[in-house]
This record gives sequence, structure tokens and C-alpha cells, in this order.
Amino acid sequence: MTTKVIKGGTVCTADRTWKADVLIEDETIKQIGEDLKGDEYIDAEGAYVIPGGIDPHTHMEMPFMGTTAAETFETGTWAAACGGTTMLVDFCLPGPDGSIKNAINEWHRKSAPQICTDIGYHMAVTGWNETIFNEMKDAVEMGVNSFKHFMAYKGALMIEDDEMFASFKRCKELGALPMVHAENGDLVADMQAQMLEKGITGPEGHAYSRPPEFEGEAANRAITIADTAGVPLYIVHVSCEQAHEAIRRARQKGMRVYGEPLAQFLTLDESEYFNTDWDHAARRVMSPPFRNKEHQDSLWHGLQAGSLQVVATDHAAFSTEQKRMGLNDFTKIPNGSNGLEERLAVLWTRGVETGRLTPNEFVAVTSTNVAKILNIYPKKGAIVEGADADIVVWDPKITKTISASNHHSILDYNVFEGFEVTAQSRYTISRGEVIWAWGQNSQPQPGRGRFVPRPAFPSAHTALSKWKELTAPKQIHRDPMNIPAGI
Amino acid sequence: MTTKVIKGGTVCTADRTWKADVLIEDETIKQIGEDLKGDEYIDAEGAYVIPGGIDPHTHMEMPFMGTTAAETFETGTWAAACGGTTMLVDFCLPGPDGSIKNAINEWHRKSAPQICTDIGYHMAVTGWNETIFNEMKDAVEMGVNSFKHFMAYKGALMIEDDEMFASFKRCKELGALPMVHAENGDLVADMQAQMLEKGITGPEGHAYSRPPEFEGEAANRAITIADTAGVPLYIVHVSCEQAHEAIRRARQKGMRVYGEPLAQFLTLDESEYFNTDWDHAARRVMSPPFRNKEHQDSLWHGLQAGSLQVVATDHAAFSTEQKRMGLNDFTKIPNGSNGLEERLAVLWTRGVETGRLTPNEFVAVTSTNVAKILNIYPKKGAIVEGADADIVVWDPKITKTISASNHHSILDYNVFEGFEVTAQSRYTISRGEVIWAWGQNSQPQPGRGRFVPRPAFPSAHTALSKWKELTAPKQIHRDPMNIPAGI
Amino acid sequence: MTTKVIKGGTVCTADRTWKADVLIEDETIKQIGEDLKGDEYIDAEGAYVIPGGIDPHTHMEMPFMGTTAAETFETGTWAAACGGTTMLVDFCLPGPDGSIKNAINEWHRKSAPQICTDIGYHMAVTGWNETIFNEMKDAVEMGVNSFKHFMAYKGALMIEDDEMFASFKRCKELGALPMVHAENGDLVADMQAQMLEKGITGPEGHAYSRPPEFEGEAANRAITIADTAGVPLYIVHVSCEQAHEAIRRARQKGMRVYGEPLAQFLTLDESEYFNTDWDHAARRVMSPPFRNKEHQDSLWHGLQAGSLQVVATDHAAFSTEQKRMGLNDFTKIPNGSNGLEERLAVLWTRGVETGRLTPNEFVAVTSTNVAKILNIYPKKGAIVEGADADIVVWDPKITKTISASNHHSILDYNVFEGFEVTAQSRYTISRGEVIWAWGQNSQPQPGRGRFVPRPAFPSAHTALSKWKELTAPKQIHRDPMNIPAGI
Amino acid sequence: MTTKVIKGGTVCTADRTWKADVLIEDETIKQIGEDLKGDEYIDAEGAYVIPGGIDPHTHMEMPFMGTTAAETFETGTWAAACGGTTMLVDFCLPGPDGSIKNAINEWHRKSAPQICTDIGYHMAVTGWNETIFNEMKDAVEMGVNSFKHFMAYKGALMIEDDEMFASFKRCKELGALPMVHAENGDLVADMQAQMLEKGITGPEGHAYSRPPEFEGEAANRAITIADTAGVPLYIVHVSCEQAHEAIRRARQKGMRVYGEPLAQFLTLDESEYFNTDWDHAARRVMSPPFRNKEHQDSLWHGLQAGSLQVVATDHAAFSTEQKRMGLNDFTKIPNGSNGLEERLAVLWTRGVETGRLTPNEFVAVTSTNVAKILNIYPKKGAIVEGADADIVVWDPKITKTISASNHHSILDYNVFEGFEVTAQSRYTISRGEVIWAWGQNSQPQPGRGRFVPRPAFPSAHTALSKWKELTAPKQIHRDPMNIPAGI
Ligand SMILES: [Zn+2]
Ligand SMILES: [Zn+2]
Ligand SMILES: [Zn+2]
Ligand SMILES: [Zn+2]
Ligand SMILES: [Zn+2]
Ligand SMILES: [Zn+2]
Ligand SMILES: [Zn+2]
Ligand SMILES: [Zn+2]
Repeated sequence: MTTKVIKGGTVCTADRTWKADVLIEDETIKQIGEDLKGDEYIDAEGAYVIPGGIDPHTHMEMPFMGTTAAETFETGTWAAACGGTTMLVDFCLPGPDGSIKNAINEWHRKSAPQICTDIGYHMAVTGWNETIFNEMKDAVEMGVNSFKHFMAYKGALMIEDDEMFASFKRCKELGALPMVHAENGDLVADMQAQMLEKGITGPEGHAYSRPPEFEGEAANRAITIADTAGVPLYIVHVSCEQAHEAIRRARQKGMRVYGEPLAQFLTLDESEYFNTDWDHAARRVMSPPFRNKEHQDSLWHGLQAGSLQVVATDHAAFSTEQKRMGLNDFTKIPNGSNGLEERLAVLWTRGVETGRLTPNEFVAVTSTNVAKILNIYPKKGAIVEGADADIVVWDPKITKTISASNHHSILDYNVFEGFEVTAQSRYTISRGEVIWAWGQNSQPQPGRGRFVPRPAFPSAHTALSKWKELTAPKQIHRDPMNIPAGI
Repeated sequence: MTTKVIKGGTVCTADRTWKADVLIEDETIKQIGEDLKGDEYIDAEGAYVIPGGIDPHTHMEMPFMGTTAAETFETGTWAAACGGTTMLVDFCLPGPDGSIKNAINEWHRKSAPQICTDIGYHMAVTGWNETIFNEMKDAVEMGVNSFKHFMAYKGALMIEDDEMFASFKRCKELGALPMVHAENGDLVADMQAQMLEKGITGPEGHAYSRPPEFEGEAANRAITIADTAGVPLYIVHVSCEQAHEAIRRARQKGMRVYGEPLAQFLTLDESEYFNTDWDHAARRVMSPPFRNKEHQDSLWHGLQAGSLQVVATDHAAFSTEQKRMGLNDFTKIPNGSNGLEERLAVLWTRGVETGRLTPNEFVAVTSTNVAKILNIYPKKGAIVEGADADIVVWDPKITKTISASNHHSILDYNVFEGFEVTAQSRYTISRGEVIWAWGQNSQPQPGRGRFVPRPAFPSAHTALSKWKELTAPKQIHRDPMNIPAGI
Repeated sequence: MTTKVIKGGTVCTADRTWKADVLIEDETIKQIGEDLKGDEYIDAEGAYVIPGGIDPHTHMEMPFMGTTAAETFETGTWAAACGGTTMLVDFCLPGPDGSIKNAINEWHRKSAPQICTDIGYHMAVTGWNETIFNEMKDAVEMGVNSFKHFMAYKGALMIEDDEMFASFKRCKELGALPMVHAENGDLVADMQAQMLEKGITGPEGHAYSRPPEFEGEAANRAITIADTAGVPLYIVHVSCEQAHEAIRRARQKGMRVYGEPLAQFLTLDESEYFNTDWDHAARRVMSPPFRNKEHQDSLWHGLQAGSLQVVATDHAAFSTEQKRMGLNDFTKIPNGSNGLEERLAVLWTRGVETGRLTPNEFVAVTSTNVAKILNIYPKKGAIVEGADADIVVWDPKITKTISASNHHSILDYNVFEGFEVTAQSRYTISRGEVIWAWGQNSQPQPGRGRFVPRPAFPSAHTALSKWKELTAPKQIHRDPMNIPAGI
Repeated sequence: MTTKVIKGGTVCTADRTWKADVLIEDETIKQIGEDLKGDEYIDAEGAYVIPGGIDPHTHMEMPFMGTTAAETFETGTWAAACGGTTMLVDFCLPGPDGSIKNAINEWHRKSAPQICTDIGYHMAVTGWNETIFNEMKDAVEMGVNSFKHFMAYKGALMIEDDEMFASFKRCKELGALPMVHAENGDLVADMQAQMLEKGITGPEGHAYSRPPEFEGEAANRAITIADTAGVPLYIVHVSCEQAHEAIRRARQKGMRVYGEPLAQFLTLDESEYFNTDWDHAARRVMSPPFRNKEHQDSLWHGLQAGSLQVVATDHAAFSTEQKRMGLNDFTKIPNGSNGLEERLAVLWTRGVETGRLTPNEFVAVTSTNVAKILNIYPKKGAIVEGADADIVVWDPKITKTISASNHHSILDYNVFEGFEVTAQSRYTISRGEVIWAWGQNSQPQPGRGRFVPRPAFPSAHTALSKWKELTAPKQIHRDPMNIPAGI
């Protein structure tokens, strides 16, 4: 068993920053300290040594809107690795048979031979019946402890409120985490129709038909439902102040709600949809859409203040050709954008280099927080002894202009095209193995990644259940004399 | 045509207070000034002369929950008159045939021979189809310019979100005002079942199953839907900070949203449901339920600040015997409480006498504001020349202990039992006729009341439509060169 | 005594809009109704008949920053009249002797021979001692029921917090209304010095040194002090969300706080200070400065929601030559801008024509609300019988491009230069006299205006005092046995 | 060098919980893992192994209000140790010479021979002059990186706003953290006088004269000043929603503000001051005072949501005899209460056992967060290799009734008298030494504690400075042609 030492770097975790070497034995971190020795050395001079990024929101090869996301598990995990991300959590959708168990197995079948980094799944609950109720338990036993609910995509993935409530209650029993795509699907559908009627068929119609109020409303509704079910809630792709406000308000009542802005939402704005180049605009079509600068500020402040916890990408890559399915009707443009590979660099440049975030906060929102929320900390998201050696040597001196011409994603464009970033992964290490080395012609190794099962009942879940039990309604005991005899 | 002069009083309206006589000719106010002469005199020395109260939220003889509200149009309008209220707006429900037109006619049939004061209707929209779409126009033409939507009472009156949205859009076209009973009906239904399962069958289960969060959520949802439809919104029976917060938040975005706390919610709290006397508790069962002191403060502050505009009662009177239908199951207790007769006295005593409200604000929230919102101002809700002579000589020196033993409602109990109030109507004048004189053995005159048709398109409606049009989505014009040829 | 009839117009007040003629006898409104007859007729066909505007915040001939505001009482009231404003409330500053009484008399001496319209004063309290304490009572007896406090202008007008608190308590006793210029003067002074040190000497330094946070902080502080004193509070020239938020928050606690945005703040933004033409930028220098679009939206929404009540101008006109006193140092640019004449037209065009405000709300914020707050309603700010005939025939069909070349102010520029407005005063009537007629070469009549004394103790003051008394601290009565004997 | 192993426990830190032994060598943690061996064993079976508590707010032997706090450095640190707290940060006040350096040396002189645990200081800045400016740098070099400012105690410790601003700017330069006691001192002084005038001389007068609004106002003011200075801010003893609201609002704008509720504020309410036993009430007199249940909820929610970060005690112990100095005048009751010893047990019982907090959150708010804020993490506040072995074996099965009869403080009463707590420190370990063992008659070892110097420039400070620089005002460059020639 050869050992490796990451040498000379500055370890930066969610809670501190210090000079130390990191000794890796096999797949795990063996020791952190000064002057460590090993069989091999990985040079971290002048660089930070951070936990590998975790992108908790991706859609590889997802069948959606009549096509399939172009990014494969291989290209996706490879692009992630190049960008410093060592684990994805992908959304698993039930197939035509509606079975959760089968869907997870199908996802395994697709991902296992391809993945270059580790992976986990969130399971989508897109309807409600006894089989789903039962199979949610199977999912948890298979290591999937989070369930996604779409409040939008009416007529497709959208779930009704009472079904969602049933699912949330089931999550509570199972110690699982419900998640929502929060947009009011009824209103979106109606607005889409209105736009088309008015002759607004271009990508701007996408933005118009999904205003921030729809997202805020749905977030607020999901929060109330989760609070009633007595379970924490994770709101994916928070794009706007309205949803953020709902989250803050809930948290200030003691509710356990998490919010996930995307790297795109922090840095790109709605003017993209008004671009007069159709392809440019269509490539940015995703739901919710990009918002304006005020919303961006709100999201940054949420990350600073702790009212938002995680930065993800919702990476769902559709090629320009696929996007053109909606040439005459924006509602047919497959929803999704890229970001998997750029997330860390963009966040570092726009966040840490500006002073909006400390380096520790950067680590927290790119890996540690979500590892805790998903209950795989400190196996992932940490640099501590015993943890998986998912580590990135993060070089704050490598500058790069983001471009489709130099990215590793399968996509033929990049929504961050032209962004100047000032940091890159010098080495990406996945369970002890260097899978990416800057400038050294690294190649993907499909199939080396593993599925990471996640246990149920994280501490917030348990605490919340305790509080709910303590404050549960109590019967009033009435003397029979004070109860009328009946009629 | 004899003339009457209200003599020696202090006229108090929503905008000012001054010493003046009021000359009434026939049914209208002819003149306001000093030393007026007439054929008869009504003594107002030492008293305020205020616009007759308007209670915009009552349910006379309403068929509901397997029974019919005990208060008749006669007893209800009579009790109202005794308490200083000269107009009710009652909720009209469609009958089995679902027809709006027929329902209005049925309401006319029931109310016309009975009413002692004037009346108007709000029309309930409890489902959606083409007939309803069409008949909403008929309703407006028949003088009903407001439509109520129940977001609760699942399986009964409750309407689905997309139906409600359709109805709101129809209101926008018609210049009508949508109203909502804001509670999340799915969650209420589930919580009711949970309470019963736990063996909580008493009235406390009613309070537990309808927490403030459910009301806030529904209010927020309705607001978003109204904003999308581009129409003002009126939220009935606001009981809590959560709904009030949603209203405030909306108003601070320029939305036109109104909120109506009830006299009960301002003065009675949830401990009533924990009373060990079952009858006591059951008699207070209404939806939403009474809340605690913090919520009361929120509502008072809303009235002061203008974020809430109207005080109503949701008077829906079920006898103790009717209440006992739910002896073994609180969900079967007919929902409703009294207040029609006590509203002004309670609000004066707890509001004006404490300094929470000025006398002008008292008038605003008991008549003027709702008259404006319902577009019948200044015919009603005003003391100006030409207005209907609906006037109360309000004596701030008459004290009384509220009690079922001395009230005029048909009900066998009173939720304000034991309240000491410090003001009463000395004379209640309806379209020029003294229909109530304190201590003078006045008698009800059923059939003298009239239905008051209300025109569509109040100014807030028109202004909002203008703004929505101005800020409507605009198509982006793309050079054909920038649009791909398609695939 | 000749009578005049305003014929054929649509009367529009704060509470309603209707077709009616208005009969004027001498200086007052005699009758409002249909088909009125009189000796003379004023044509109001196609126009609104509204209460004359009241601008509650002006500085005529004010000695300030080493110079004197160029606008005289004559030119100022004349410009006002041309723009539809029939009353100003000017800020009276104590002279070198510090006497309030003398200052009021001095203001009378200056204004009486010049004013073309009616006028009132707010008295500035710029320090604290027994004489001021005593003379505040004199001021109230002289008809000045409001006292202004500067929280900024350190070393000049600024008052310390404890002095301000003493003055507020005095206001409470006297039934007077305290007002504040809310900016943190210490921080402003320091930031000004910092800007100059950095070499930022141009007008942009003015904006930088007075950020919204300084205004919000001061507003919040003044509110707390007023609440402790138990007196309502009026915050002048509210420019930003921060101050507005403090006001809203206070109002939602039942505090009686009023906020006054300016016409400039609603329509002009901070980019003006970054204009590369020094004169352009300097002419817009006022305190607080213009803010960005988000703040504008906040102010508009406040007017709609009722959390802000009054639109004023803080008209303090310094000529370009005077502005150039600060050529090398922005802190020496005399603070002030124009607006007196443009207020109504700008607010109508940007407010009513867009649907942000109803016509009634326009009247409320331009005259009625402030008349109520200052306790001169309905003498001013109303169209009711008995009121002063201060009336404007407001023509929504006259368009005009605002320009220094066509305005009536003495100023050599106009901060609204180039604004297209769509309404103008067809006739301005002051106490029954037509003092301005559009296109008819009207001339100023200096000396015809009068000082309007204002009584103390408006209703909000009285109500608040009652509430404060009711909720005052109560002593705990302890049995002597439970009080130790002492040491 | 003997080694010790904490055996069989569950390590619980701010970020995770796991079964592990902890090996201590000399004063530091050497290793954390399974089955560790050492010379001695400390039994942690069935217990949590947590970082020793840090109480960042104490006043040992403080000269104040004409007397000196009764708790000595010996008794205080000993009581702390018994309760599971291994480090205090005490407030150092300048002596009559006003010198910061001398004060620190004096504090060393007093504390060094007495302290049983480690200690740090915050330095009070109670005025402003060049010496203070200079000596702040000395303080930082002496290891004191935080400066406290009293916005209350007028005529004594209170500092003026402009002085405080100067001090904050100095903190920014030095990388130090400003702290404030946030209450409006002017208003408090006035209210105290009012209470005495009214004859309210008892302890209830203390509560009445320090309402939550005064605290919120001061917090808001300090935040604005800190934001202007560009430095983070720490608000001590946050007792109420108003201050918490100001903090939240600031954090949501990207400001770096921390809030510290006290264990007392979370669990005791203002009714204590209305107790008819004078001694009972007087013993609870501290500033700010206890608040009501709503405020308690706000504070708990802040800890959950992360808008509040630290739980302290403001331990300032005055004996009953000392309290009686204010027998005839509550303003003479020395302000302060106890809590040092009870903090962890109370917070565990009321927080963790109820489900309000997770065990990890408990650790975060009792040690880790403040160690990070004060820049001594992970030397203190962590269980990681290399950290000081300040560790508590926390036994969640030891129940105890808090009482003056069994506490270790010098005080003759206990504000938590009668509280049932369900957890206690089984062993308290300070830098590797067991200084307290439950039930084993441990004795204080005065003089073994050490002063812990704290470095300047924590990461939040650095990030904020970067952002402030990036967003600093920029000069507008004007063509000389566009600048007038001057006058
Ligand atoms: Zn989604
Ligand atoms: Zn997604
Ligand atoms: Zn209802
Ligand atoms: Zn109802
Ligand atoms: Zn000013
Ligand atoms: Zn001014
Ligand atoms: Zn303190
Ligand atoms: Zn303290």
C-alpha cells in the first residue's frame, strides 16, 4: 500500500486554514500534520488543500422534455473532476413503471461503468401510491436518503400538494430529506400559454413566464407542508430573493430549511434571455431562470449570513441542437445549463477574490455543508483523518478564460463563456487517486467512481422530531359534567 | 316629504370630527351644517354622529355542514341595526344546480321579505366551468362585484388553485374583486384526521388543526395568484400575523391587497378552545380559529398602520344544539360565531377608549374603507350630502354588559358574554328612518331593507390594470440572422 | 360678494371622484353639486377639480451654508401657484439670538409682503435650553404646531440626541408634532472628510458621503426617541428603503410615524451625481441625495400601501453661481434643489398615468394627508363645504416639457429639465381667487397670501397619549416583609 | 510525559458526532481514534466528549457602581470548571489613569495567581484620545484583539457615537473586533429618572427603564457605525427580538455582525422583576434585563438559524448585600447576575433535550463559534489533534437541581435556583489536566490557568476589508471643459 503526501500546502476547511501536509493511505486520509513522509508526493506549494467539491444537483443523461441530457455520466464526472469536484449527487427519475427501486437500479446500471468520481442519488417522487410509499423505504435502504418533488412541470413531473405532503410525512418516518423544485406549476403553465398567445415565442418568454414570485410562493408552500409534516426541507436551485425570504422567515421560526443557490444564479442575470442571438438566449434556458442583480446580491448575502448553505449547478446539459427543439416555442427548449466544471472557479473568483466569502465559507458552501445535510460528513466534505481522500489542490494563481473550446464537458457551448477565473484545480484527488493534474494531459477513467450510500436520520432530523413531539397538541380533559349529553 | 335633523352632535367621519347638525330629506343626507332646521329632530347631544356600520362578512341562514345557520335575515339585520350596523354584505352560495344567477335570485327571495337594513352579496365561486365563467358577468350586472373563493373546506366548498386562478382572471376582466378564505385546505383536512386518530375529538382539536401557518401560506398563495391575474385581492377574516405578514409584504411590492380582521380576532384568544366546558369551547369554533395575544397585537397594529383595512365579524350563528352535532368529533361542529351586533361597541371600547384607534380610524374600519373597496362609497360609509342617510348616533356614555340575555340575535349564547362595553347606538338610522332607538322598545321592520347593487371597476382596479399593461412582457425582436434555421 | 362656480369638472378628492360643480362664495366653498349658478364661471370641462396642492417642505430665502436660498417668498409662492400648489409650509430657523418667537416674527416680516399663496411654518429646534423650552409654547400659540430637528449638519444645525429627546417630550406636552431630518451627522461629517482626503472633491462625493444606511439609522433612532417620548413623528425627505423600512417597522408596532418622500426622490436617481458636467451634478446636490431605482420603487410602494403619506419637495433653490461655491469641495455646495412648481405634474405623470397611484391617492399625498397630519384639515386639503376655496382645475390633457426656460421659479436651471409632463393646472384658485390661469399671462400678486395658524393636538396625538398612559409602568407593591431592612 | 486517554466516549464537536477515544499528551490532543492506549484512562462511557466551554463574557472582581463584583478570578474560574467551562474571556476596564496597557497589566496582576482555567480579555474603550488610539495597538500586541464599547451607563462607562466610530476605525486598522453593549444610554438615564419621579423605586423600575426598543436602537446604530468603519461587529448580551432583528437585517446585507444571547435570556423572563420578594427581584437586575417569552423564542431561533452565534453569561456576581445598595433606588442596584457555572447544563437541558438544538449546535454556541470569532480556533473550541486539551466529558445522565446550596460560585444565591438540569460535567480537563471530577471532591488550583493571547485579523475581517476596498467610492473624472472656472 503506497502512501502519498500532499506537501507544502495550506489546508483550508470549512472551519479553519493552516499550513499542513496531508498523508493519504489507500483511499483515506491517514494523517494531517507537519513534515509528513510518504511514498509519493503531491506538490501543494502556494496552493490550498481543500475537500473535493460536491455538486449536489446534476442531471446526467436525464430523459427530459422529449430528449436526453447530453452530458453522460462519464463526461460529467470527468468535467467535474477537472473543475475540482469529486462527487455528484444526481437526480434519479422513475421510469415508465413508476418504480423507485427499479429506477435506482437503472441509474446504477447507467452510471457504474462510466463514473470517474463518486456519486450519489436523490430520488424523484413524481406521484403517489402505495408502491411509492413502500419503495421509499427501499430507497433509503439502498442509500438514497433524499427525495425530490417537482412543484412545476405541470402535466409531467409535477406533483400535487396533498401527494407531496404524504411523501414528506413518509420522509419524516424514514429519516429522509425532502427536496423541492419550487415554482408554482399552475401559474407557469398559464403564463407560458399567455406568452405564446401574445406571440412571444422566443427564450425571453421563458423568463417572463417564471417570475420570482412564482418561486417564492412555491417555496413558502413547501415550507409550510414540511413544517406540518415535521421534517427538514431542502429547496433546490434558489434563484431569487422571494424564495430566499421564505427560507429566512421559516428559519427564524425554528424551521429546518436549507437553500441551494446555483453558481449561475450568483453570476449571470436575466438580460441573457434578451440577447438578440437566439442560440445564446436558448442555451441559458433553465428553470428557474436567471434573475437580476438584486437577486444575485440576495443570494450572496444568504451564503454569507448562513441563511443559504449550498452552491450547486443543476447541471443539465442540452446541446445547441437540442435547444433548437424550441425554436418556434420556448416551452419546448429543453431546460438546463452547464456549470459542473466551472462552479468552484467561478465561486472563488466572484466570491473569495472579492471578499464576499472567506476561503472557509467557500469550502463550506462547495462541499462541507451539503455533506452534513446529506449525512455523509465527514466521509465526504472534510479533511480529517479517516475521511475519504477526496481532496483538491486548489491553485489560486492559475488564471483561465472559461470557454467551450477548453472545457471538458460534452457540451458545444458554455454559459460562462468568456469569464476570467483566477483559480483552478492543480490536482484533483478522488479516494486517494490523482485523477486530474493541471496541464498534464490527464484522462478520464470511467468506472472507477463509486456510489456512496447515505444513512438516514441526520442530527437536524432527530432534533426536529424531538421538538415536534414535545410541542404536539395535547388533549383537553373535560369533566363529563361539562360535556353535554349529546343530541 | 318630512325632514329630520340630527341635532347637536359631533359628526365623526373617516377623515374628520366636527360639531354639526345633519339634515335628512327622505332617504338621503341633504345638508350638514350649523343650526339646521327640519320637521323632526333627533337628539345627538353628547354623542357622535357616524356613518352606519357596514359588516361586509355575514352568513345569514347559510346551509353549511349539514345544517343551516340559525340567524335569519330578519334577526340578523335587526341585531345589526341594534348594534349600529346599517348594511351587511352576505355570502351567497350556489345551490345544487351550481348556477350563480339562480343563487343570487334565491338569496333575493330569502332576504327581501326579511331584511330590516340594506344588504349586498358576495358570490361564492366553488368550482369552475363555462357556465360559471359566463354567469360571473351576470352577477356583476346584478350588482354583485365580488367573488369569494374557499381555499379550505376540502371536499366541500374548496376550490383548486388553477380554478381559482381562472376565476381571478375573470374578475380582472369584469372589474370585480376576488376574495379568499385563506387556509390550506389539504393540510387542515390531514391535521383534522390526525387529531381524531390521536383521540383529540374536542373543540381544542379545531384550533390545533388550523394553525396560523396554514392561513399565512394560503394568503401568500392567493396573493401570488391575484398578482399574476393582475387583480386586487381581499382576504377575509385575517386572524394572524402570518396572513398579515403576507399582506404587508405584498402591499410593499405595490400589490393591491386588503385584509379583514374580525372583531372576535381582535379581542378573543385561543384559550377559549381549551375551556373545560365543552359548550363554551364549541360555541367559539370558527375558521380560522381565535389566536393568541401576539396575533391580536399584530391585527390592531395593522388597523393603525393601514396594512389591514376592515373589521368584520363573519357572523355565522349556530345554536348550541347545532354545535353539539360535533360532540364526538370537532370536525362536525358547525363553524361560526356571532358578532354582528357587538362589532361597533367592542371595537370602540377596546380600540378607541384605549387609544389604539382614533375615532376617525374607528369609522374608517367599520364602514368607510369597505364602502370604498366595494365601490359603494359615498352612497354608503359616508356623511356627505347626497349620501344615503345611513347614520348612527353613537353614544360613548352608554355602558352595557354584553350577554345572550340582552342581545337581539336569535342565538342562545354570545361569544362576547360578559364584555363590558362603554358605547352604544343611541339611534340607528337607515336611509333616513330611525330603526333603532336606545331604550325605546324599537321593533324590527322586516322587508324595509333593500339590496344595494355595486358597480364594477373601482379605482384601484383600474390603476392596477394600467400598471400591469405598462409593465407587461415585451417581445425581443431578433434579426432573422440571429435565429437558427431550425432542425 | 360675487360668487364663482367651477363648472363642468370632475371633483377628485382623497376619497372619491365625481362630476360636480363647485360654488365659491368669497374665500370658501359654499356648495358642491350639480348645475350650480354663480356670478362668474370657471371652466372645468374635461378637467379634475382637486384641492390645491400643499407642499409641506420648503426653504424660501433660507440663510444656509454661508449664503441665502435664491427663491424668495414671492417667486416661490408664485411658482407654486403656477404648478397647482396653494400652500407652502416653510422651515423657520432661529436667528443668532436663538429665539423661536423672534424667528417666527422675522419669518412673518419677510414673508407677509411677498407671498402669493397661503403659508405656514415648521419651527427648527437646533439646540436646547430653558428659553427654547418656554418659547415652544409661544410658537404653538402663534400657530406653529410642528418642530423640526436636524440629525445632520454637524457643527451647524445638528442637535444632540438628548436635546432632541427633551424637545420631543416638550412636543408631547404641547400637542405638537416633532419632525426630523434623519441622517447620522457624525458619520456624514467623517465620510465627507474621507472623501476630500481621497481627492474626491466633486459632487459624487456628496452622494458617497450620505449613503442610505445613514438615513435609515437616524430614522430608526428618531423613531425610538419619539416612541419613548410618547409622541408621533414626521420624518421629512425620506429618500430610501432603509428609512422607509424603519418607518414601516415602527408603524407595525403601533407607533405613529409619518414619512415624506420627495418628488425628486421618486423620479431622479443617483447617476445624476456622476454626470460629467460639474454644474449638472452640483445642481442636484441636496441632502439626502437621490438614490437608485430600487429605492424609488420602495417609495412608490410606500405611497400605495400607506406606509408613506406625503410627497413634498424640500424646495431650497440655490443658483448655479451659488452652487459653484463648492467647486473645489463638494461639502461647500449649498444643499438644495427645486420642485415646488413641478411636484404635481411630475407626480401625476409618473404616478397616475402609469397606474402606480389612483387619482384619489394623488390628491391624498399632495394635499389631504399632510393637511390632516398638520391639523388644518379640512380647512385645507379638502373640497367640502366650508373649506377654504384652495382649488386647482387640473387639466390632464396639457402636455409640457419642463425647463428652466419656461418655469416661474427664480432659479436658472431645473432638476427636472426635459421631463415631459402630461398635466398642468388650468386654473389655480387661492381662497376663491383665480391666481393662475394657464396661457393667460397671469401675474403674481405678492402680499395676498396669508399665514395659516395650525392648532395643536391632532387626533393621532391624543390617541397615542391615551395608549401610553394606559400601558405605563406600574409599581409592584411589595409587602414590607419582603423588602430587606437595608444596609 | 504521561499520556491520558479519554476512553469510550462519543466525541461531539460543532461539526460531527462519533465514537472515539482521545489521547492527550501533555497539554494537547495527540490523537483521536479507536482503541487508543495511554498511561492513564478517563472514563467517558455513556458520555459525550466535547470541547471545554468558553464563556466569552464575564466580569470577575469588576469595580462597578461603587462596589466590586464578588466573584473572584479564583472562585469564578473554579465555578466555571465545575460547570464544564475551561476558558473565560473577561472584560478589562481602564483604571483612573485611563491607560489600556496598565489596565491589562493590572488584570494580569489580579488574575494570574488565582485562575484555575485559561482566560482572555476584552478591553473596554470608554473614551477617546490619542493615548487610547496608540494603546489599542499595544493591547493587540499583548493578545487582546477585541474592544468593548458601552452605549449605556451614561456618565460612567458610556462612550459617545463619534468616539465609538473612531475606535471602530482603529479596530479595522488593527484587525481587531469591536464589541458593544447596545442600549441607548440617554434614554435609559431619562427613563430611570422618570421611574424614580413616579415613585417606582423597586427592581421593576429597572425593567421598565430598559425596554427592548432601546437595545434594538443601539444595536442598529452600532451596526451602521461598524459598517461605515468597514469592520465586523460583535454585540454582547443580545436579549431581545429588536436587537436580533437589527443583526439579521445587517447580515442579510452582507455585514459581518455577531450576536451573543445569554443563558439567562434564553430561560428566564421579565416576570422575575415583578416578584414581590425584593431580594429575588434585585438579584436578577442586570442590563439589559430579562425579557418575555417571545423574545426567548427569537433568541433560540437565532441560534438554530445561525443569525446568533454564541451563548454567554455576562457573569457579574454581586451578593445580596451588595444588591441591597439599591434598596431605595433601583438605579443603585449593582447590575449583574450569575451563570458561568450553569451555562452548559441549562443550555443542554432546555436546548438539546427539547430538540431546539442538535448536540453539535450546542457545542458550536458554547465554544466553537466564539473561538473562531475571537481567532483562537482550533487551539480552543475544538477536538482536533494539536489543539489544547480543553475537554469536557459531558454526562447526559447526571441530573441536578441548581441551587446556591450546591454551586461553586462565591455568590449567596443563584438566579437559576430550582432549575432541574439533566446533564453535568463528569470530568473537566484543562490543557490535559483533570481539574474537576464529578462526585470526587475536586479542589480549585488557583494559578494554574493561563492568559491566552489572541492574534488579530480573523478571516472575516480580511474578507470584509477586501470587499470594502473593491466597492469603495470612485472619483468621477470630469473634463476640465465641464467644470466651471469658479467664482
Ligand atoms: Zn428543478
Ligand atoms: Zn434540477
Ligand atoms: Zn371563511
Ligand atoms: Zn365567512
Ligand atoms: Zn433636511
Ligand atoms: Zn429641508
Ligand atoms: Zn453590558
Ligand atoms: Zn457585561
